Amino acid sequence: MIVLGIDPGLKNTGWGVIEQRGSALRCLAYGCITTEPGRPDAERLADIHRGITAVIERYRPAEAAVECIYFSNNAKTAFATGQARGVALLASSALVVGEYGPGEIKLAVVGTGDADKRQVQYMVRSVLALPHDPEPDHAADALAAAICHAHSRVPSMSPGGRR
Amino acid sequence: MIVLGIDPGLKNTGWGVIEQRGSALRCLAYGCITTEPGRPDAERLADIHRGITAVIERYRPAEAAVECIYFSNNAKTAFATGQARGVALLASSALVVGEYGPGEIKLAVVGTGDADKRQVQYMVRSVLALPHDPEPDHAADALAAAICHAHSRVPSMSPGGRR
Repeated sequence: MIVLGIDPGLKNTGWGVIEQRGSALRCLAYGCITTEPGRPDAERLADIHRGITAVIERYRPAEAAVECIYFSNNAKTAFATGQARGVALLASSALVVGEYGPGEIKLAVVGTGDADKRQVQYMVRSVLALPHDPEPDHAADALAAAICHAHSRVPSMSPGGRR
Repeated sequence: MIVLGIDPGLKNTGWGVIEQRGSALRCLAYGCITTEPGRPDAERLADIHRGITAVIERYRPAEAAVECIYFSNNAKTAFATGQARGVALLASSALVVGEYGPGEIKLAVVGTGDADKRQVQYMVRSVLALPHDPEPDHAADALAAAICHAHSRVPSMSPGGRR
């Protein structure tokens, strides 16, 4: 099964596509949709929607994993990120969508909920046997979300063992 | 010219369509897209996108006015509303889009930036010569956004006189 991971953001929306066969995971592609801060939100959101739609058309994932972030202290950033997540979810609405919090993703990939970005990149690289750390970190986070989703379908694979 | 006003929200997205001829404004239609809280966000956002797209196809507005809310103290609500606003903006991305803060809209419609919901409903009813207050308040807010946008195109019409 093919899983699309998405780390949504108005400026940077990371995406990563993995293939799961039994317990084996393989990276098919990853990247980041970057939009220019000066442009109108409607145009930036259309770029994100187009980008995710193109990835879905190309790799035909059956399921998607979307990072779900609640900012505790910055409503403005939460609002901007919410917009990006809205169009990412919309683009994925034909797929089975799993939503995971950042702690949940880190727990599934690194084994601890408070891992830093470099630990996530390192473990994503290791799990998917990539030649180098996935860049930018938004793409690594998207791949981590996809891995978390894959783990959630095979309970024994999760180091956290919770899902 | 036809203007679509949108008051986005994950649970309730108000919309209103007005026609502007010179300084005359006329209400063509208004309503509210309501989504059920228990359903997955992706489905609810798809409903909002479908609803706004259907309104655009039916009334063919050239421009859209979208309320732009930054919550000061509730990041979770800001995030949910941001998602709805994202898909509303996406549905409107072929139109000329104006974004207005709540104070700006109240100033343009009521003449003061801190008007309450009933004052907005009353003035929307009065400006558009409606037989009764537009309900629900989300639809009234959407019509108010459309009126604010229309005023911004004809500076002398705005009681605030700022745009």
